[in-house]
Order: sequence, then structure tokens, then C-alpha cells
Amino acid sequence: MPHITLANDLPGIRGLMTDRPDTAIPLNDLADTLLRGPSPLTRGERELIAAYVSELNATRFCADTHGAAAAAQLEGGTALVEAVRHDPDTAGTTPLVRALLRVAAEVQAAAVPVTDAAIAAARAAGATDAHLHDTVLIAAAFCMYNRYVSGLATALPTAPDYYAEAGRRITAHGYAAAV
Amino acid sequence: MPHITLANDLPGIRGLMTDRPDTAIPLNDLADTLLRGPSPLTRGERELIAAYVSELNATRFCADTHGAAAAAQLEGGTALVEAVRHDPDTAGTTPLVRALLRVAAEVQAAAVPVTDAAIAAARAAGATDAHLHDTVLIAAAFCMYNRYVSGLATALPTAPDYYAEAGRRITAHGYAAAV
Repeated sequence: MPHITLANDLPGIRGLMTDRPDTAIPLNDLADTLLRGPSPLTRGERELIAAYVSELNATRFCADTHGAAAAAQLEGGTALVEAVRHDPDTAGTTPLVRALLRVAAEVQAAAVPVTDAAIAAARAAGATDAHLHDTVLIAAAFCMYNRYVSGLATALPTAPDYYAEAGRRITAHGYAAAV
Repeated sequence: MPHITLANDLPGIRGLMTDRPDTAIPLNDLADTLLRGPSPLTRGERELIAAYVSELNATRFCADTHGAAAAAQLEGGTALVEAVRHDPDTAGTTPLVRALLRVAAEVQAAAVPVTDAAIAAARAAGATDAHLHDTVLIAAAFCMYNRYVSGLATALPTAPDYYAEAGRRITAHGYAAAV
């Protein structure tokens, strides 16, 4: 039972966004910019960071939605996404993505400077300033989306193909189209 | 020393935003919507929630910037803001704001549902669904802004009147004007 009454029965952030288009518009614009705008990271890699941070925050709706969006846009598909969510250090990503996931995990843990060691490891794997900026900001943003979805105790979807469909919808149309 | 090289020497999120207008635009649109758009909470009350969450996250730049913006827009001014940042339970806010600050603190702590007790206490103090929605989303958003500012190890301002000037600028012109 969500903590607030929604005039719809859509799950997760979709119910909140349908109820509050005023806040949905900038939230979706931000998601579109971070996950689909210009970046040295592919859209699939950015969805993977979003899914991994959501997994660390144990926000099921976001972890599964962005996991599906990552799977739809990464060569390794669902198997790679599940491996990263289980243990990014042993999953078959590139060394650069693995190092950036470690940076993302530090951002998820607390609002403190990422350690010099994590930054140095990412740079050694090829990270530029833009990789680091985008990784930190995506990880930070999912600390917001996750808290919004979990804090208000939103409902999980019941349709068995909900997340796969969401992954296809995001891949084809992005986030701004969700409003 | 910030973790990435900026082509300016502006402190905190302003340096990042000047460097990356692509992400600055949706971040500022979101701040303008949450802190200055339609809400049953006054602009000063919303800045107070932002300052308090930033204080809990120990992100000095955001706590002082939004503390100054709150002080500029609340009758109690700087003394009230400092009292809230020290201990919201004894500060001279309204019972409703005090209860909403407790909700915000739960959101800051983790991406889990706000407790039924905190929700019930806020409702007993007069909170509507809109108060709860806006409080949770503002608290969640500052878990993002704080991580962005602290994670990338941005610099603090050196000008002694920086925050007071920021509070006046925000009060007069808002966030979207910052880009």
C-alpha cells in the first residue's frame, strides 16, 4: 500500500509520475539526459550502472526496470545484467565498466568523496573526466529515484512481462515519452 | 581538489553545472520545480528540508547554500535554520514542519519505505498527500545533489559572503536562471 493515494494503479515511479506530471516532467528529462543523452558511456552501460545502484539500494522496481533496459541494449543481455547485479567484480563486463561500477557503489554508499583509489583504478582502465562525471551523477540520481519509489512504498507490478516490456519501451522511446 | 578538471574555478555544484550545461539544465529545472513550483509547503519550508537533508549528508556546500535560501525566505531567518540543522525536534518550527523533517530524515537514511509511525505523526500534524509527496521527493533529490557535489570532491567557496549572496540570488531568481 503506497503511503499516498494515487488516482491510478500503475506500479513504482509510473504511478507517482502519472499522479504528479509537474514533478514527472523534470524527473524524466533528467533520466533522458543522463541515460540517453551524449556520453562516452553507451546507453546500455548507463542503464547497467542505474540497475546496479538500484540493486544496492534494494529498490526492486528500479533494479528490474533498468536491468531490463540494460539487457535490451547490451550485447551480453540478461545474463550479463544478472551477473553484474550479483557481483560486478566477476561479471563479464569490460575492465572500464567494472571500475566505474566500483565508483558508483561508493557514491551509493554515502555522500562523501569517491576514494582516490577508486578514481585511480577507473583512470587506469581508461576513464576520462566525462566517464567519471556521468558515472557519479547517474549513481547519485538513482539514490534519488530509488528513495522516491521506496520511500513512498509504491506497489510492484503484477504483470509477468512488465519489466521486459518496460525495457523495450525505454529502448525505443526513452523517458521523456513516459509523461 | 575536484576529481575532474573543470574549466572554471566556481565552487560546489556551480562549477560542475558551468562545465556541463547538458546536465545542468534538467538538474536546475528539477530544483526549480521542487523548491519553487506549486506545493502546499512554502518555498522557505522546502529550502529548510533541503538544508536539513544536506546537513545529515554532511555536504557543506549544499547545507550552507540552501540554509541561506531558507533563512532568506523564513520568518525565523538564520537563527531558525541553525536551530533546525542542530536539532529539528527542539527548533521553533511548526509541528507540521517538524514532523515532515522526521520523514525527510528517514528518506535520507535509506531507500526504504518511510515508517508508518512517521507518516502517521505527519498526518496528525496536518500533512496531506501533497505534503508527504513533496517532502519525500525533496529529501530524495538532495541525496542526489549532495552525492554529486561531495562524490566529485568539489571545492568550497572562499568568499566570506558567498552563501548569503547565493541565498539572495536563489530567492530572487531561482535555479533555472543559474544555467
